Amino acid sequence: MSSGKDSGKTYHLSCTGDALETVNKHTDERDITLFGSCFCPFVQRVWVAFEYLGIPYKVNEVDPYKKPKDLLDVSPKGLVPGLKLNYFNPPRPLNESTVILEYLEDLAANTTGRTLLPSHTDPYARALVRLQADHVSRTLVPAFYRFLQGDETKQAEARTELDAALQQLIHLLNDAEQKIDAGMGSGLWSDSGELNWLDVMVAPWIFRASNVLLHYRAFELPEDPKFRAWTQRLFAHPAFKATTSTEDLYVDSYERYAYNRPNTSQVANAINTGRGLP
Amino acid sequence: MSSGKDSGKTYHLSCTGDALETVNKHTDERDITLFGSCFCPFVQRVWVAFEYLGIPYKVNEVDPYKKPKDLLDVSPKGLVPGLKLNYFNPPRPLNESTVILEYLEDLAANTTGRTLLPSHTDPYARALVRLQADHVSRTLVPAFYRFLQGDETKQAEARTELDAALQQLIHLLNDAEQKIDAGMGSGLWSDSGELNWLDVMVAPWIFRASNVLLHYRAFELPEDPKFRAWTQRLFAHPAFKATTSTEDLYVDSYERYAYNRPNTSQVANAINTGRGLP
Repeated sequence: MSSGKDSGKTYHLSCTGDALETVNKHTDERDITLFGSCFCPFVQRVWVAFEYLGIPYKVNEVDPYKKPKDLLDVSPKGLVPGLKLNYFNPPRPLNESTVILEYLEDLAANTTGRTLLPSHTDPYARALVRLQADHVSRTLVPAFYRFLQGDETKQAEARTELDAALQQLIHLLNDAEQKIDAGMGSGLWSDSGELNWLDVMVAPWIFRASNVLLHYRAFELPEDPKFRAWTQRLFAHPAFKATTSTEDLYVDSYERYAYNRPNTSQVANAINTGRGLP
Repeated sequence: MSSGKDSGKTYHLSCTGDALETVNKHTDERDITLFGSCFCPFVQRVWVAFEYLGIPYKVNEVDPYKKPKDLLDVSPKGLVPGLKLNYFNPPRPLNESTVILEYLEDLAANTTGRTLLPSHTDPYARALVRLQADHVSRTLVPAFYRFLQGDETKQAEARTELDAALQQLIHLLNDAEQKIDAGMGSGLWSDSGELNWLDVMVAPWIFRASNVLLHYRAFELPEDPKFRAWTQRLFAHPAFKATTSTEDLYVDSYERYAYNRPNTSQVANAINTGRGLP
Protein backbone atom coordinates (compact mmCIF):
# COMPACT_ATOMS: atom_id res chain seq x y z
CA MET A 1 0.00 0.00 0.00
CA SER A 2 1.16 3.49 -0.80
CA SER A 3 2.58 5.62 1.97
CA GLY A 4 0.54 8.45 0.46
CA LYS A 5 3.63 10.51 -0.38
CA ASP A 6 5.14 11.18 -3.75
CA SER A 7 8.58 9.59 -3.46
CA GLY A 8 9.72 11.16 -6.74
CA LYS A 9 10.18 7.93 -8.65
CA THR A 10 10.12 8.26 -12.39
CA TYR A 11 9.20 5.98 -15.26
CA HIS A 12 11.42 3.13 -16.35
CA LEU A 13 13.16 3.19 -19.72
CA SER A 14 13.72 -0.54 -20.23
CA CYS A 15 11.63 -3.65 -19.82
CA THR A 16 12.30 -6.17 -17.07
CA GLY A 17 11.41 -9.84 -16.54
CA ASP A 18 9.62 -11.70 -19.34
CA ALA A 19 9.26 -8.54 -21.44
CA LEU A 20 13.03 -7.97 -21.33
CA GLU A 21 13.61 -11.48 -22.67
CA THR A 22 11.18 -10.77 -25.49
CA VAL A 23 12.89 -7.48 -26.34
CA ASN A 24 16.22 -9.30 -26.49
CA LYS A 25 14.77 -11.78 -28.98
CA HIS A 26 13.59 -8.95 -31.26
CA THR A 27 16.67 -6.88 -31.97
CA ASP A 28 17.24 -7.94 -35.60
CA GLU A 29 16.00 -5.85 -38.52
CA ARG A 30 12.52 -6.90 -39.67
CA ASP A 31 9.85 -5.63 -42.04
CA ILE A 32 8.21 -3.83 -39.10
CA THR A 33 9.81 -1.89 -36.23
CA LEU A 34 7.66 -1.35 -33.13
CA PHE A 35 8.46 1.86 -31.26
CA GLY A 36 7.41 1.29 -27.67
CA SER A 37 7.91 2.09 -24.02
CA CYS A 38 8.04 -0.55 -21.34
CA PHE A 39 5.23 0.74 -19.09
CA CYS A 40 2.77 1.96 -21.73
CA PRO A 41 -0.50 -0.01 -21.94
CA PHE A 42 -1.28 1.29 -25.45
CA VAL A 43 2.05 -0.21 -26.57
CA GLN A 44 1.33 -3.45 -24.77
CA ARG A 45 -1.92 -3.85 -26.71
CA VAL A 46 -0.04 -3.79 -29.97
CA TRP A 47 2.85 -5.86 -28.69
CA VAL A 48 0.54 -8.66 -27.51
CA ALA A 49 -1.05 -8.68 -30.96
CA PHE A 50 2.35 -9.05 -32.67
CA GLU A 51 3.14 -11.98 -30.39
CA TYR A 52 -0.24 -13.68 -30.77
CA LEU A 53 -0.60 -13.15 -34.51
CA GLY A 54 2.94 -14.36 -35.19
CA ILE A 55 4.02 -11.26 -37.15
CA PRO A 56 7.81 -10.72 -37.20
CA TYR A 57 8.96 -7.40 -35.66
CA LYS A 58 11.89 -5.55 -34.17
CA VAL A 59 11.44 -3.62 -30.90
CA ASN A 60 12.81 -0.13 -30.49
CA GLU A 61 12.43 1.04 -26.88
CA VAL A 62 12.12 4.82 -26.74
CA ASP A 63 11.56 7.48 -24.11
CA PRO A 64 8.18 8.88 -25.21
CA TYR A 65 8.61 12.04 -23.14
CA LYS A 66 11.91 12.90 -24.82
CA LYS A 67 10.35 12.35 -28.26
CA PRO A 68 13.42 11.33 -30.25
CA LYS A 69 13.31 12.24 -33.94
CA ASP A 70 12.91 8.64 -35.11
CA LEU A 71 9.74 8.39 -32.99
CA LEU A 72 8.36 11.67 -34.35
CA ASP A 73 8.96 10.32 -37.85
CA VAL A 74 6.49 7.50 -37.27
CA SER A 75 4.13 9.20 -34.80
CA PRO A 76 3.66 12.95 -35.31
CA LYS A 77 2.46 13.64 -31.73
CA GLY A 78 5.38 11.61 -30.39
CA LEU A 79 3.01 9.08 -28.86
CA VAL A 80 3.82 5.39 -28.58
CA PRO A 81 3.09 2.91 -30.05
CA GLY A 82 4.33 3.73 -33.52
CA LEU A 83 5.28 1.43 -36.37
CA LYS A 84 7.91 1.90 -39.02
CA LEU A 85 7.05 -0.26 -42.03
CA ASN A 86 10.42 -1.04 -43.55
CA TYR A 87 8.99 -3.06 -46.41
CA PHE A 88 8.08 0.19 -48.14
CA ASN A 89 10.80 2.26 -49.77
CA PRO A 90 11.05 4.77 -48.22
CA PRO A 91 9.63 3.27 -45.00
CA ARG A 92 6.12 4.35 -44.02
CA PRO A 93 4.77 5.25 -40.59
CA LEU A 94 1.68 4.17 -38.65
CA ASN A 95 0.40 5.20 -35.24
CA GLU A 96 -2.65 5.02 -32.90
CA SER A 97 -2.94 1.71 -31.04
CA THR A 98 -6.42 0.78 -32.29
CA VAL A 99 -5.52 1.57 -35.90
CA ILE A 100 -2.33 -0.50 -35.57
CA LEU A 101 -4.35 -3.40 -34.16
CA GLU A 102 -6.66 -3.33 -37.18
CA TYR A 103 -3.62 -3.22 -39.46
CA LEU A 104 -1.99 -6.21 -37.74
CA GLU A 105 -5.26 -8.15 -37.88
CA ASP A 106 -5.53 -7.51 -41.64
CA LEU A 107 -1.85 -8.28 -42.20
CA ALA A 108 -2.03 -11.56 -40.30
CA ALA A 109 -5.14 -12.64 -42.22
CA ASN A 110 -3.04 -12.33 -45.41
CA THR A 111 0.08 -13.98 -43.98
CA THR A 112 0.03 -16.10 -40.81
CA GLY A 113 -3.71 -16.78 -40.99
CA ARG A 114 -4.21 -16.05 -37.28
CA THR A 115 -6.93 -13.64 -36.17
CA LEU A 116 -8.17 -11.92 -33.03
CA LEU A 117 -11.69 -11.10 -34.23
CA PRO A 118 -14.36 -13.72 -34.94
CA SER A 119 -14.56 -14.94 -38.53
CA HIS A 120 -15.73 -12.64 -41.33
CA THR A 121 -18.52 -15.12 -41.93
CA ASP A 122 -20.15 -13.99 -38.66
CA PRO A 123 -20.58 -10.18 -38.79
CA TYR A 124 -22.73 -10.11 -35.66
CA ALA A 125 -20.14 -11.97 -33.58
CA ARG A 126 -17.53 -9.47 -34.78
CA ALA A 127 -19.84 -6.60 -33.90
CA LEU A 128 -20.35 -7.84 -30.33
CA VAL A 129 -16.60 -7.97 -29.78
CA ARG A 130 -16.21 -4.49 -31.30
CA LEU A 131 -18.96 -3.24 -28.98
CA GLN A 132 -16.95 -4.49 -26.00
CA ALA A 133 -13.81 -2.85 -27.36
CA ASP A 134 -15.69 0.41 -27.92
CA HIS A 135 -16.77 0.35 -24.27
CA VAL A 136 -13.15 -0.15 -23.20
CA SER A 137 -11.83 2.78 -25.25
CA ARG A 138 -14.68 5.14 -24.56
CA THR A 139 -15.41 4.46 -20.90
CA LEU A 140 -13.13 2.04 -19.09
CA VAL A 141 -9.73 3.46 -20.08
CA PRO A 142 -10.66 7.12 -19.31
CA ALA A 143 -12.14 5.99 -15.97
CA PHE A 144 -8.85 4.24 -15.14
CA TYR A 145 -6.88 7.47 -15.60
CA ARG A 146 -9.43 9.69 -13.84
CA PHE A 147 -9.23 7.37 -10.83
CA LEU A 148 -5.45 7.16 -10.86
CA GLN A 149 -4.92 10.92 -11.28
CA GLY A 150 -7.87 12.15 -9.25
CA ASP A 151 -7.17 14.12 -6.09
CA GLU A 152 -8.87 13.01 -2.88
CA THR A 153 -12.08 14.91 -3.61
CA LYS A 154 -12.49 13.19 -6.96
CA GLN A 155 -11.39 9.68 -6.09
CA ALA A 156 -14.67 8.35 -4.69
CA GLU A 157 -16.55 9.37 -7.82
CA ALA A 158 -13.84 8.01 -10.09
CA ARG A 159 -13.73 4.71 -8.18
CA THR A 160 -17.49 4.32 -8.65
CA GLU A 161 -17.11 5.12 -12.33
CA LEU A 162 -14.37 2.52 -12.84
CA ASP A 163 -16.37 -0.08 -10.91
CA ALA A 164 -19.38 0.62 -13.13
CA ALA A 165 -17.25 0.36 -16.28
CA LEU A 166 -15.93 -3.03 -15.14
CA GLN A 167 -19.44 -4.27 -14.32
CA GLN A 168 -20.63 -3.16 -17.74
CA LEU A 169 -17.72 -5.03 -19.33
CA ILE A 170 -18.71 -8.18 -17.43
CA HIS A 171 -22.28 -7.70 -18.65
CA LEU A 172 -21.18 -7.33 -22.28
CA LEU A 173 -18.85 -10.35 -22.04
CA ASN A 174 -21.54 -12.58 -20.52
CA ASP A 175 -24.05 -11.41 -23.11
CA ALA A 176 -21.71 -12.16 -26.01
CA GLU A 177 -20.65 -15.51 -24.58
CA GLN A 178 -24.20 -16.77 -25.01
CA LYS A 179 -24.18 -15.70 -28.65
CA ILE A 180 -20.67 -16.48 -29.92
CA ASP A 181 -19.38 -20.02 -30.32
CA ALA A 182 -16.14 -20.64 -28.46
CA GLY A 183 -13.41 -21.16 -31.03
CA MET A 184 -15.13 -18.53 -33.20
CA GLY A 185 -13.23 -15.70 -31.57
CA SER A 186 -15.03 -15.73 -28.24
CA GLY A 187 -11.95 -14.87 -26.24
CA LEU A 188 -10.58 -15.98 -22.89
CA TRP A 189 -13.80 -14.99 -21.09
CA SER A 190 -15.01 -18.41 -22.23
CA ASP A 191 -12.90 -21.08 -20.56
CA SER A 192 -12.71 -22.90 -23.89
CA GLY A 193 -11.87 -19.74 -25.90
CA GLU A 194 -8.61 -18.27 -27.14
CA LEU A 195 -7.14 -14.77 -26.78
CA ASN A 196 -9.27 -12.36 -28.82
CA TRP A 197 -9.61 -8.71 -29.81
CA LEU A 198 -11.30 -7.63 -26.60
CA ASP A 199 -8.77 -9.44 -24.43
CA VAL A 200 -5.94 -7.60 -26.16
CA MET A 201 -7.74 -4.25 -26.04
CA VAL A 202 -8.33 -4.34 -22.29
CA ALA A 203 -5.72 -6.63 -20.70
CA PRO A 204 -3.03 -3.94 -20.16
CA TRP A 205 -5.41 -1.87 -18.00
CA ILE A 206 -6.82 -4.85 -16.09
CA PHE A 207 -3.24 -5.80 -15.29
CA ARG A 208 -2.29 -2.27 -14.19
CA ALA A 209 -5.45 -2.13 -12.09
CA SER A 210 -4.22 -5.30 -10.34
CA ASN A 211 -0.93 -3.71 -9.30
CA VAL A 212 -0.80 0.09 -9.87
CA LEU A 213 -4.35 0.84 -8.72
CA LEU A 214 -4.02 -1.67 -5.90
CA HIS A 215 -0.85 0.06 -4.72
CA TYR A 216 -1.92 3.70 -5.02
CA ARG A 217 -5.69 3.44 -4.52
CA ALA A 218 -6.21 0.16 -2.62
CA PHE A 219 -8.39 -0.81 -5.57
CA GLU A 220 -9.74 -4.34 -5.81
CA LEU A 221 -10.92 -5.78 -9.11
CA PRO A 222 -14.44 -7.26 -9.12
CA GLU A 223 -14.79 -10.43 -7.05
CA ASP A 224 -17.03 -12.11 -9.61
CA PRO A 225 -15.44 -15.60 -9.92
CA LYS A 226 -15.77 -15.61 -13.70
CA PHE A 227 -13.99 -12.25 -13.87
CA ARG A 228 -11.20 -13.52 -11.61
CA ALA A 229 -10.74 -16.71 -13.66
CA TRP A 230 -10.60 -14.59 -16.84
CA THR A 231 -7.92 -12.29 -15.44
CA GLN A 232 -5.85 -15.32 -14.46
CA ARG A 233 -6.13 -16.70 -18.01
CA LEU A 234 -5.27 -13.27 -19.46
CA PHE A 235 -2.20 -12.69 -17.31
CA ALA A 236 -0.92 -16.24 -17.88
CA HIS A 237 -1.47 -16.24 -21.64
CA PRO A 238 1.91 -16.65 -23.40
CA ALA A 239 1.37 -13.62 -25.69
CA PHE A 240 0.52 -11.38 -22.74
CA LYS A 241 3.14 -12.78 -20.39
CA ALA A 242 5.85 -12.29 -23.03
CA THR A 243 5.17 -8.53 -23.00
CA THR A 244 4.94 -8.09 -19.22
CA SER A 245 7.65 -6.62 -17.03
CA THR A 246 7.98 -7.16 -13.27
CA GLU A 247 5.27 -5.41 -11.26
CA ASP A 248 7.62 -2.91 -9.58
CA LEU A 249 8.27 -1.37 -13.00
CA TYR A 250 4.60 -0.42 -13.34
CA VAL A 251 4.23 0.79 -9.76
CA ASP A 252 7.31 3.00 -10.13
CA SER A 253 6.39 4.29 -13.58
CA TYR A 254 2.87 5.34 -12.58
CA GLU A 255 3.83 7.31 -9.48
CA ARG A 256 3.82 10.42 -11.68
CA TYR A 257 0.19 9.79 -12.54
CA ALA A 258 -0.86 8.85 -9.01
CA TYR A 259 0.32 12.23 -7.70
CA ASN A 260 -0.81 13.98 -10.86
CA ARG A 261 2.55 15.67 -11.34
CA PRO A 262 2.52 18.52 -13.88
CA ASN A 263 3.53 17.53 -17.43
CA THR A 264 3.20 13.84 -16.74
CA SER A 265 1.97 13.01 -20.23
CA GLN A 266 -0.43 13.98 -23.01
CA VAL A 267 -2.85 11.35 -21.64
CA ALA A 268 -2.66 12.91 -18.17
CA ASN A 269 -3.20 16.41 -19.56
CA ALA A 270 -6.25 15.29 -21.52
CA ILE A 271 -7.79 13.84 -18.35
CA ASN A 272 -7.00 17.00 -16.37
CA THR A 273 -8.60 19.26 -18.99
CA GLY A 274 -11.65 17.11 -19.66
CA ARG A 275 -10.70 16.17 -23.20
CA GLY A 276 -10.74 12.84 -24.99
CA LEU A 277 -7.49 10.88 -24.86
CA PRO A 278 -4.96 11.87 -27.54
CA MET B 1 -27.24 34.62 -39.69
CA SER B 2 -28.53 34.08 -36.18
CA SER B 3 -30.27 36.94 -34.42
CA GLY B 4 -28.34 35.84 -31.34
CA LYS B 5 -31.50 34.98 -29.41
CA ASP B 6 -32.85 31.59 -28.52
CA SER B 7 -36.18 31.48 -30.34
CA GLY B 8 -37.24 28.31 -28.53
CA LYS B 9 -37.36 26.08 -31.59
CA THR B 10 -37.09 22.40 -30.91
CA TYR B 11 -35.86 19.40 -32.85
CA HIS B 12 -37.83 17.91 -35.71
CA LEU B 13 -39.37 14.47 -35.44
CA SER B 14 -39.66 13.59 -39.13
CA CYS B 15 -37.41 13.86 -42.16
CA THR B 16 -38.08 16.32 -44.95
CA GLY B 17 -36.97 16.58 -48.58
CA ASP B 18 -34.91 13.75 -50.07
CA ALA B 19 -34.64 11.98 -46.72
CA LEU B 20 -38.43 11.88 -46.39
CA GLU B 21 -38.72 10.21 -49.79
CA THR B 22 -36.16 7.62 -48.69
CA VAL B 23 -38.02 6.96 -45.43
CA ASN B 24 -41.21 6.43 -47.42
CA LYS B 25 -39.46 3.82 -49.57
CA HIS B 26 -38.33 1.89 -46.48
CA THR B 27 -41.50 1.16 -44.53
CA ASP B 28 -41.78 -2.58 -45.28
CA GLU B 29 -40.52 -5.20 -42.86
CA ARG B 30 -36.92 -6.22 -43.59
CA ASP B 31 -34.21 -8.30 -41.97
CA ILE B 32 -32.86 -5.11 -40.36
CA THR B 33 -34.71 -2.19 -38.78
CA LEU B 34 -32.81 1.08 -38.42
CA PHE B 35 -33.91 3.18 -35.43
CA GLY B 36 -33.04 6.75 -36.27
CA SER B 37 -33.80 10.43 -35.84
CA CYS B 38 -33.94 12.85 -38.71
CA PHE B 39 -31.36 15.38 -37.48
CA CYS B 40 -28.83 13.02 -35.87
CA PRO B 41 -25.43 12.84 -37.60
CA PHE B 42 -24.54 9.52 -35.96
CA VAL B 43 -27.68 8.07 -37.54
CA GLN B 44 -26.86 9.60 -40.89
CA ARG B 45 -23.48 7.85 -40.91
CA VAL B 46 -25.18 4.50 -40.66
CA TRP B 47 -28.00 5.40 -43.01
CA VAL B 48 -25.58 6.48 -45.77
CA ALA B 49 -23.79 3.15 -45.37
CA PHE B 50 -27.06 1.20 -45.79
CA GLU B 51 -27.78 3.16 -48.96
CA TYR B 52 -24.30 2.84 -50.42
CA LEU B 53 -23.74 -0.79 -49.52
CA GLY B 54 -27.15 -1.80 -50.85
CA ILE B 55 -28.32 -3.56 -47.69
CA PRO B 56 -32.13 -3.81 -47.36
CA TYR B 57 -33.58 -2.07 -44.27
CA LYS B 58 -36.70 -0.60 -42.74
CA VAL B 59 -36.56 2.84 -41.09
CA ASN B 60 -38.17 3.48 -37.73
CA GLU B 61 -38.06 7.20 -36.89
CA VAL B 62 -38.00 7.68 -33.11
CA ASP B 63 -37.78 10.58 -30.67
CA PRO B 64 -34.45 9.82 -28.99
CA TYR B 65 -35.20 12.12 -26.07
CA LYS B 66 -38.44 10.31 -25.25
CA LYS B 67 -36.64 6.97 -25.39
CA PRO B 68 -39.51 4.69 -26.40
CA LYS B 69 -39.26 1.10 -25.15
CA ASP B 70 -38.56 -0.36 -28.60
CA LEU B 71 -35.51 1.93 -28.86
CA LEU B 72 -34.26 0.96 -25.38
CA ASP B 73 -34.57 -2.68 -26.43
CA VAL B 74 -31.96 -2.19 -29.17
CA SER B 75 -29.86 0.57 -27.56
CA PRO B 76 -29.60 0.42 -23.76
CA LYS B 77 -28.66 4.11 -23.32
CA GLY B 78 -31.53 5.08 -25.63
CA LEU B 79 -29.09 6.54 -28.15
CA VAL B 80 -29.68 6.42 -31.89
CA PRO B 81 -28.72 4.80 -34.18
CA GLY B 82 -29.78 1.34 -33.12
CA LEU B 83 -30.42 -1.75 -35.20
CA LYS B 84 -32.92 -4.53 -34.64
CA LEU B 85 -31.76 -7.64 -36.47
CA ASN B 86 -34.97 -9.43 -37.30
CA TYR B 87 -33.25 -12.35 -38.97
CA PHE B 88 -32.44 -13.74 -35.54
CA ASN B 89 -35.17 -15.36 -33.49
CA PRO B 90 -35.67 -13.62 -31.14
CA PRO B 91 -34.36 -10.44 -32.84
CA ARG B 92 -30.99 -9.16 -31.65
CA PRO B 93 -29.91 -5.56 -31.00
CA LEU B 94 -26.88 -3.55 -32.06
CA ASN B 95 -25.87 0.02 -31.26
CA GLU B 96 -22.98 2.52 -31.48
CA SER B 97 -22.57 4.10 -34.92
CA THR B 98 -18.98 3.00 -35.53
CA VAL B 99 -19.72 -0.57 -34.47
CA ILE B 100 -22.77 -0.64 -36.74
CA LEU B 101 -20.66 0.64 -39.64
CA GLU B 102 -18.18 -2.21 -39.14
CA TYR B 103 -21.09 -4.65 -39.01
CA LEU B 104 -22.62 -3.32 -42.24
CA GLU B 105 -19.23 -3.41 -43.96
CA ASP B 106 -18.78 -7.08 -42.97
CA LEU B 107 -22.36 -7.94 -43.90
CA ALA B 108 -22.08 -6.31 -47.33
CA ALA B 109 -18.81 -8.12 -48.04
CA ASN B 110 -20.73 -11.40 -47.55
CA THR B 111 -23.81 -10.33 -49.52
CA THR B 112 -23.80 -7.36 -51.91
CA GLY B 113 -20.03 -7.35 -52.36
CA ARG B 114 -19.79 -3.57 -51.94
CA THR B 115 -17.31 -2.08 -49.49
CA LEU B 116 -16.38 1.27 -47.98
CA LEU B 117 -12.86 0.37 -46.84
CA PRO B 118 -9.98 -0.38 -49.22
CA SER B 119 -9.48 -4.05 -50.11
CA HIS B 120 -8.30 -6.55 -47.48
CA THR B 121 -5.33 -7.18 -49.74
CA ASP B 122 -3.96 -3.74 -48.83
CA PRO B 123 -3.78 -3.52 -45.01
CA TYR B 124 -1.82 -0.25 -45.10
CA ALA B 125 -4.41 1.50 -47.29
CA ARG B 126 -7.10 0.35 -44.85
CA ALA B 127 -5.02 1.62 -41.93
CA LEU B 128 -4.66 5.10 -43.47
CA VAL B 129 -8.43 5.38 -43.86
CA ARG B 130 -8.94 4.16 -40.29
CA LEU B 131 -6.42 6.74 -39.10
CA GLN B 132 -8.50 9.48 -40.74
CA ALA B 133 -11.68 8.07 -39.17
CA ASP B 134 -9.96 7.92 -35.77
CA HIS B 135 -9.10 11.61 -36.09
CA VAL B 136 -12.74 12.39 -36.90
CA SER B 137 -14.12 10.53 -33.86
CA ARG B 138 -11.47 11.61 -31.42
CA THR B 139 -10.92 15.25 -32.39
CA LEU B 140 -13.14 16.68 -35.11
CA VAL B 141 -16.56 15.61 -33.79
CA PRO B 142 -15.92 16.74 -30.18
CA ALA B 143 -14.56 20.07 -31.53
CA PHE B 144 -17.78 20.54 -33.54
CA TYR B 145 -19.92 20.23 -30.39
CA ARG B 146 -17.63 22.33 -28.20
CA PHE B 147 -17.85 25.10 -30.80
CA LEU B 148 -21.61 24.83 -31.23
CA GLN B 149 -22.34 24.70 -27.49
CA GLY B 150 -19.61 27.02 -26.28
CA ASP B 151 -20.63 30.30 -24.66
CA GLU B 152 -19.05 33.50 -25.97
CA THR B 153 -15.95 33.17 -23.83
CA LYS B 154 -15.20 29.70 -25.18
CA GLN B 155 -16.13 30.19 -28.82
CA ALA B 156 -12.87 31.65 -30.09
CA GLU B 157 -10.87 28.76 -28.65
CA ALA B 158 -13.35 26.20 -29.96
CA ARG B 159 -13.36 27.79 -33.42
CA THR B 160 -9.57 27.54 -33.55
CA GLU B 161 -9.78 23.94 -32.42
CA LEU B 162 -12.31 23.02 -35.13
CA ASP B 163 -10.26 24.83 -37.78
CA ALA B 164 -7.18 22.88 -36.69
CA ALA B 165 -9.10 19.59 -36.78
CA LEU B 166 -10.26 20.33 -40.34
CA GLN B 167 -6.73 21.26 -41.44
CA GLN B 168 -5.40 18.04 -39.94
CA LEU B 169 -8.09 16.10 -41.82
CA ILE B 170 -7.00 17.78 -45.07
CA HIS B 171 -3.41 16.84 -44.27
CA LEU B 172 -4.33 13.20 -43.64
CA LEU B 173 -6.46 13.02 -46.80
CA ASN B 174 -3.73 14.50 -49.00
CA ASP B 175 -1.14 12.20 -47.45
CA ALA B 176 -3.27 9.11 -48.07
CA GLU B 177 -4.19 10.16 -51.59
CA GLN B 178 -0.54 9.87 -52.58
CA LYS B 179 -0.41 6.34 -51.17
CA ILE B 180 -3.80 4.78 -52.04
CA ASP B 181 -4.83 3.98 -55.60
CA ALA B 182 -8.13 5.57 -56.59
CA GLY B 183 -10.66 2.79 -57.01
CA MET B 184 -8.99 0.97 -54.13
CA GLY B 185 -11.17 2.72 -51.57
CA SER B 186 -9.56 6.13 -51.78
CA GLY B 187 -12.80 8.02 -51.32
CA LEU B 188 -14.28 11.15 -52.82
CA TRP B 189 -11.25 13.22 -51.81
CA SER B 190 -9.75 11.88 -55.01
CA ASP B 191 -11.78 13.16 -57.96
CA SER B 192 -11.67 9.67 -59.47
CA GLY B 193 -12.58 7.91 -56.21
CA GLU B 194 -15.87 6.60 -54.82
CA LEU B 195 -17.57 7.17 -51.46
CA ASN B 196 -15.49 5.48 -48.75
CA TRP B 197 -15.33 4.84 -45.01
CA LEU B 198 -13.89 8.25 -44.12
CA ASP B 199 -16.44 10.08 -46.28
CA VAL B 200 -19.28 8.34 -44.45
CA MET B 201 -17.70 8.87 -41.02
CA VAL B 202 -17.32 12.62 -41.42
CA ALA B 203 -19.87 13.83 -44.00
CA PRO B 204 -22.76 14.44 -41.53
CA TRP B 205 -20.64 16.92 -39.53
CA ILE B 206 -19.16 18.65 -42.58
CA PHE B 207 -22.72 19.13 -43.83
CA ARG B 208 -23.95 20.48 -40.47
CA ALA B 209 -20.94 22.78 -40.34
CA SER B 210 -22.07 24.15 -43.72
CA ASN B 211 -25.51 25.12 -42.43
CA VAL B 212 -25.85 24.88 -38.62
CA LEU B 213 -22.42 26.32 -37.77
CA LEU B 214 -22.75 28.89 -40.55
CA HIS B 215 -26.10 30.00 -39.12
CA TYR B 216 -25.26 30.10 -35.41
CA ARG B 217 -21.52 30.81 -35.51
CA ALA B 218 -20.90 32.42 -38.92
CA PHE B 219 -18.48 29.56 -39.47
CA GLU B 220 -16.89 29.10 -42.88
CA LEU B 221 -15.42 25.77 -43.92
CA PRO B 222 -11.81 25.86 -45.18
CA GLU B 223 -11.39 27.66 -48.50
CA ASP B 224 -8.91 25.11 -49.80
CA PRO B 225 -10.25 24.38 -53.34
CA LYS B 226 -9.68 20.67 -52.98
CA PHE B 227 -11.66 20.67 -49.74
CA ARG B 228 -14.49 22.61 -51.37
CA ALA B 229 -14.63 20.26 -54.37
CA TRP B 230 -14.71 17.31 -51.99
CA THR B 231 -17.63 18.71 -49.98
CA GLN B 232 -19.56 19.27 -53.22
CA ARG B 233 -18.97 15.65 -54.24
CA LEU B 234 -19.96 14.46 -50.74
CA PHE B 235 -23.19 16.45 -50.55
CA ALA B 236 -24.20 15.49 -54.11
CA HIS B 237 -23.44 11.79 -53.73
CA PRO B 238 -26.67 9.77 -54.17
CA ALA B 239 -26.19 7.81 -50.92
CA PHE B 240 -25.66 10.99 -48.91
CA LYS B 241 -28.31 13.03 -50.67
CA ALA B 242 -30.90 10.28 -50.10
CA THR B 243 -30.46 10.67 -46.34
CA THR B 244 -30.48 14.47 -46.21
CA SER B 245 -33.41 16.64 -45.12
CA THR B 246 -33.92 20.30 -46.04
CA GLU B 247 -31.45 22.63 -44.32
CA ASP B 248 -34.06 24.36 -42.12
CA LEU B 249 -34.61 21.05 -40.32
CA TYR B 250 -30.99 21.06 -39.12
CA VAL B 251 -30.92 24.74 -38.23
CA ASP B 252 -34.10 24.36 -36.17
CA SER B 253 -33.07 21.10 -34.53
CA TYR B 254 -29.68 22.42 -33.38
CA GLU B 255 -30.94 25.61 -31.76
CA ARG B 256 -31.01 23.68 -28.46
CA TYR B 257 -27.29 23.03 -28.80
CA ALA B 258 -26.41 26.52 -30.00
CA TYR B 259 -27.87 28.04 -26.84
CA ASN B 260 -26.66 25.14 -24.74
CA ARG B 261 -30.08 24.59 -23.20
CA PRO B 262 -30.08 22.32 -20.13
CA ASN B 263 -30.81 18.64 -20.84
CA THR B 264 -30.29 19.01 -24.56
CA SER B 265 -28.80 15.54 -24.98
CA GLN B 266 -26.30 13.03 -23.64
CA VAL B 267 -23.81 14.30 -26.22
CA ALA B 268 -24.31 17.89 -25.01
CA ASN B 269 -23.92 16.84 -21.36
CA ALA B 270 -20.70 14.99 -22.13
CA ILE B 271 -19.25 18.10 -23.77
CA ASN B 272 -20.36 20.30 -20.86
CA THR B 273 -18.75 18.02 -18.27
CA GLY B 274 -15.53 17.36 -20.18
CA ARG B 275 -16.20 13.70 -20.85
CA GLY B 276 -15.84 11.62 -23.98
CA LEU B 277 -18.97 11.36 -26.13
CA PRO B 278 -21.38 8.61 -25.05
